[in-house]
Amino acid sequence: MTATITAFESSPDRGQGLARDMRVRWALEEVGKPYEVRLLSFKAMKQPAHLALNPFGQIPTFEEDGLALFESGAIVLHIAEQHPSLLPDDAKGRMRAIMWMFSALATVEPPIVERSAAYLMEREKPWYAERLPMLDDRIRVRLTELSRHLGDSEWLDGAFSAGDLMMIHALRRLESSGLLKEFPDLEAYIARGQARPAYQRAFAAQLQVFAAATAGG
Amino acid sequence: MTATITAFESSPDRGQGLARDMRVRWALEEVGKPYEVRLLSFKAMKQPAHLALNPFGQIPTFEEDGLALFESGAIVLHIAEQHPSLLPDDAKGRMRAIMWMFSALATVEPPIVERSAAYLMEREKPWYAERLPMLDDRIRVRLTELSRHLGDSEWLDGAFSAGDLMMIHALRRLESSGLLKEFPDLEAYIARGQARPAYQRAFAAQLQVFAAATAGG
Repeated sequence: MTATITAFESSPDRGQGLARDMRVRWALEEVGKPYEVRLLSFKAMKQPAHLALNPFGQIPTFEEDGLALFESGAIVLHIAEQHPSLLPDDAKGRMRAIMWMFSALATVEPPIVERSAAYLMEREKPWYAERLPMLDDRIRVRLTELSRHLGDSEWLDGAFSAGDLMMIHALRRLESSGLLKEFPDLEAYIARGQARPAYQRAFAAQLQVFAAATAGG
Repeated sequence: MTATITAFESSPDRGQGLARDMRVRWALEEVGKPYEVRLLSFKAMKQPAHLALNPFGQIPTFEEDGLALFESGAIVLHIAEQHPSLLPDDAKGRMRAIMWMFSALATVEPPIVERSAAYLMEREKPWYAERLPMLDDRIRVRLTELSRHLGDSEWLDGAFSAGDLMMIHALRRLESSGLLKEFPDLEAYIARGQARPAYQRAFAAQLQVFAAATAGG
């Protein structure tokens, strides 16, 4: 049985690969697992059929052989546990790679998402100009710490892992902010991830959705 | 070898059990694993010895037998994997419980943390009165979805799991907001978690740190 994931029918990022299905696609490509995609409109995401898969009405979801999951972190972890290559074989290295997945989602990504949320919901508000630098400074703290940890290493902890996959994708959402230019080592880290053939296949697949949706218009 | 965790020497919550070491203590108590606590000042958390354990300079950390972890989600998952009772035995149920851990950290908690961050950093700003209801509404969306999922169930998915542990602790940070009063089913869910003997032992242990720190003053 082929796995099925869900993704935006019309991604708000216009094919830049910033939506969270990209993480799942990337992981599936890293392990060489074929998959099908069910595209959802924003309306369909909030209707009962999808809410039964994800009570928070978000993409991506993952379905295979009677298992239904939501949360990109959980889906990527499931894929990584079922196939070699995204988690180290030794128990301690495996747990540290999972730790970096949690770190990407719970420590690094939230202030980045907050910056996007402010742009979406508050950019016409009189306080936006004063608040944006506060948000940027919160992000800078995390980027400085992450950069210091990375040092001269290629990846976060030994070989490329699901932790790098999640971290690199979370960082990509800063591309339009200009903040990454202050951290050339993190830009290089992101670029190493993007250079992986699996990343490029995943990116092309999600871009195709956008291209197909706009071909008619 | 006994596991060692880190916690605040002086918790900003004055012993309410809202800091993230509480999650780790609770998980350790659920599985009956003894542990030692190393208390850290805010200054010590940002110094090299602790940054070597957690590059983001936060608590809690976990050390045992050559494994060092940070991120409360990763630590609780590690504890749950090493001992029975916090994850279902069947593979699919296990993965769904882990999914709820990610959901607590990546979907439910961030807007709650954001509300706390706004109180800390923006409550003197002229926009706080207008922005607070926006933050509350974002949280209400998640609480409504979570409440709808929970329905008449005792826990998120079958028996109590590490997913409930993480979710209940994340929700507790809303206690002072008044928002939980709009969701009596979620209040009852939190209360079921707090009624567990393991929760109570963990809460008493972290409260003792606060009581000891203030006994001299």
